[in-house]
Amino acid sequence: MQIVKYPKQAQWQELMQRPLPENPEIEASVRKIMAEVKAKGDEALKRFTADYDGVTPENIRVSNAEISNAGNQVSDELKSAIAVAYRNIRKFHASQLNKEPAIETSPGIKCWRKNVAIENVGLYIPGGSAPLFSTVLMLAIPAKLAGCKKIIMITPPAKSGKIAPAILYAATVCGIDEIYKAGGAQAIAALAYGTEAIPKVDKIFGPGNHWVTKAKEIAQTMGTAIDMPAGPSEVLIIADESANPAFVAADLLSQAEHGPDSQVILITTSTEILESVQKEVREQSAQLPRKKIAGQSLENSFGILLQDLDSCIKFSNAYAPEHLIIATKNPNNPAEKVINAGSVFLGNYSCESAGDYASGTNHTLPTNGYAKAYSGVAVDSFLKKITFQQLDETGIKNIGPAIEIMAA
Amino acid sequence: MQIVKYPKQAQWQELMQRPLPENPEIEASVRKIMAEVKAKGDEALKRFTADYDGVTPENIRVSNAEISNAGNQVSDELKSAIAVAYRNIRKFHASQLNKEPAIETSPGIKCWRKNVAIENVGLYIPGGSAPLFSTVLMLAIPAKLAGCKKIIMITPPAKSGKIAPAILYAATVCGIDEIYKAGGAQAIAALAYGTEAIPKVDKIFGPGNHWVTKAKEIAQTMGTAIDMPAGPSEVLIIADESANPAFVAADLLSQAEHGPDSQVILITTSTEILESVQKEVREQSAQLPRKKIAGQSLENSFGILLQDLDSCIKFSNAYAPEHLIIATKNPNNPAEKVINAGSVFLGNYSCESAGDYASGTNHTLPTNGYAKAYSGVAVDSFLKKITFQQLDETGIKNIGPAIEIMAA
Repeated sequence: MQIVKYPKQAQWQELMQRPLPENPEIEASVRKIMAEVKAKGDEALKRFTADYDGVTPENIRVSNAEISNAGNQVSDELKSAIAVAYRNIRKFHASQLNKEPAIETSPGIKCWRKNVAIENVGLYIPGGSAPLFSTVLMLAIPAKLAGCKKIIMITPPAKSGKIAPAILYAATVCGIDEIYKAGGAQAIAALAYGTEAIPKVDKIFGPGNHWVTKAKEIAQTMGTAIDMPAGPSEVLIIADESANPAFVAADLLSQAEHGPDSQVILITTSTEILESVQKEVREQSAQLPRKKIAGQSLENSFGILLQDLDSCIKFSNAYAPEHLIIATKNPNNPAEKVINAGSVFLGNYSCESAGDYASGTNHTLPTNGYAKAYSGVAVDSFLKKITFQQLDETGIKNIGPAIEIMAA
Repeated sequence: MQIVKYPKQAQWQELMQRPLPENPEIEASVRKIMAEVKAKGDEALKRFTADYDGVTPENIRVSNAEISNAGNQVSDELKSAIAVAYRNIRKFHASQLNKEPAIETSPGIKCWRKNVAIENVGLYIPGGSAPLFSTVLMLAIPAKLAGCKKIIMITPPAKSGKIAPAILYAATVCGIDEIYKAGGAQAIAALAYGTEAIPKVDKIFGPGNHWVTKAKEIAQTMGTAIDMPAGPSEVLIIADESANPAFVAADLLSQAEHGPDSQVILITTSTEILESVQKEVREQSAQLPRKKIAGQSLENSFGILLQDLDSCIKFSNAYAPEHLIIATKNPNNPAEKVINAGSVFLGNYSCESAGDYASGTNHTLPTNGYAKAYSGVAVDSFLKKITFQQLDETGIKNIGPAIEIMAA
């Protein structure tokens, strides 16, 4: 972690640079994979799965037996934990469903919007070392609440050809039973174009590596919507002298552990906190199983001392962090001034992992400064709002002359 | 207009093909223009304006004098018409602002979302033969209601170096006074990257030709959000025997007049309506000032006879029209079954031009089948919804164990 004390505003821009590994050669490969899947369907999909995941699954679709067996392989403890998360996430997302009244804009003219679910959605769930069963909850719960008719999930198989039981179990809890085995750009291509086995969807959701992200970007320009553009995960913590250094360090480290390109930033008004957090980071990181990854990502990261809380908020708004933790005495006061952030955690007891797993908010959030213009995934992400208008004779007589003049 | 009677379902897909002129050579030119503007700023912008608009404006920003003079050049009639449209659009869009309550998802855990305006937005207003002052209203009114801090408008100058007075007047009515003269891909590049004269924005809105559309698509992959992807304008009309053939024909033609690549589709359950509408189209089109354009677009268009209203709605949902007019006896009944459409017009008196100009709904809508996954522009388009969570000691004690198990 690089320490910077009282940087001039002119230096801020530099401190806000994301450590984005630009990878121009990926694009050509991704386009090639997508074109192959478009042209050759399942055959190409299986070939790429063999190449990249090291296995040729017998069936692309996960069987009912595999799904029902998964429940037996998940501990009761984890089942209870998933139940807690499911309940909180569902409760918060259900509160986002609202119905708007029809408005009489002029006599005889009624206008309204209606929420209509996107019919076919595809949820991409990354596999790899940490299977993201929590992402299943974060995507499937709002999709179900929105009322999407066809919700399909796609996730890369392990070398054994299997999907992690926790992922299948979480899908079952959410009522998803159409699950396919594929990952990477080839999985996104299958969702965007459809194959013999996998139906084409209208919108693709879910996080992924550079290949997945690039494939989603390309799919979007070809007519399939996506949840949002993506970059590496990140957290910015604003701490004053009242912050708990052990908690702050734990939050920094749990984000740093995500991946070597994660970025964590601490901004504080207190020299003492800056020092005590650094000490805690050193001590806690020694205990971490993924300390190497955390160490790499800490190299891209900053501890910054600023004059006052207003400067901290100003810095944070300009950076537009995915996760913003406000660990100050009265967090709701600076929180009022937050303009750009994905999700905000208020006070010493609101750790990022609460939101990552179980507080109820969504963890699919805009990274890389996208929070300036994008929101995190919500029930809205699975809906369209269709406008309706109904004019009677009075209505058209009232505005007819205005329309004629404007159309002339 | 091509007439198709009782097509088999297998033939539907073919009837739904959009007449999309793929233009692969545009992309390279657009990328070149954007790179130039990024590298050389105003100098490049002025050069492209000279090349494409045939004029080098003295100043890129429209002066206060130009803006205040515009009012004198707009007729009182048009001013009143704009006032009617402004009031209806504002009334409907104001009704979209809502505040959500905080939710206690578990004891000691509060979650909520807050609407926060996107700080900097750029509104692109096409120039050309029909200056789209109504688009000024459609974009600026929701931007103001959302509370965007910086709302800038950009629009190509005429050969005289001036902007159409109606555009400047409409901007003034909406409270927009930061207006720049540039069009095409170079204008989108200026909004995406910023130049000496023009500030970079977070999100770009507005319709445009292929160059503008392609530039927006590229800007989106470079980190600037856009309202939605775009294609040519289109209308689908569902009519039963109760429809007024003269009104149906007028709606088909007013859409066909938009441009030679517009598409209009009539679906009806009545042979009589199919014939009488064709007759009306022939008669009315003879009177049109833009009859040549309308004629070209009618060549891409269909009149289709189907068995029943349910088939009509099914066809429409699969096509996902930008504008859907339901000219039937009880339009609210089939309207309930609409899944994919941008904006829906119910009954014989709800003509498309009402929604295009003055009913209150937005006319910036998803075309080209994008209505399957996208909504039209609304106040939401100018907002982010930031999630917040606040846990107290009880809250974290309650879900801490679940988090630990899931994180393990």
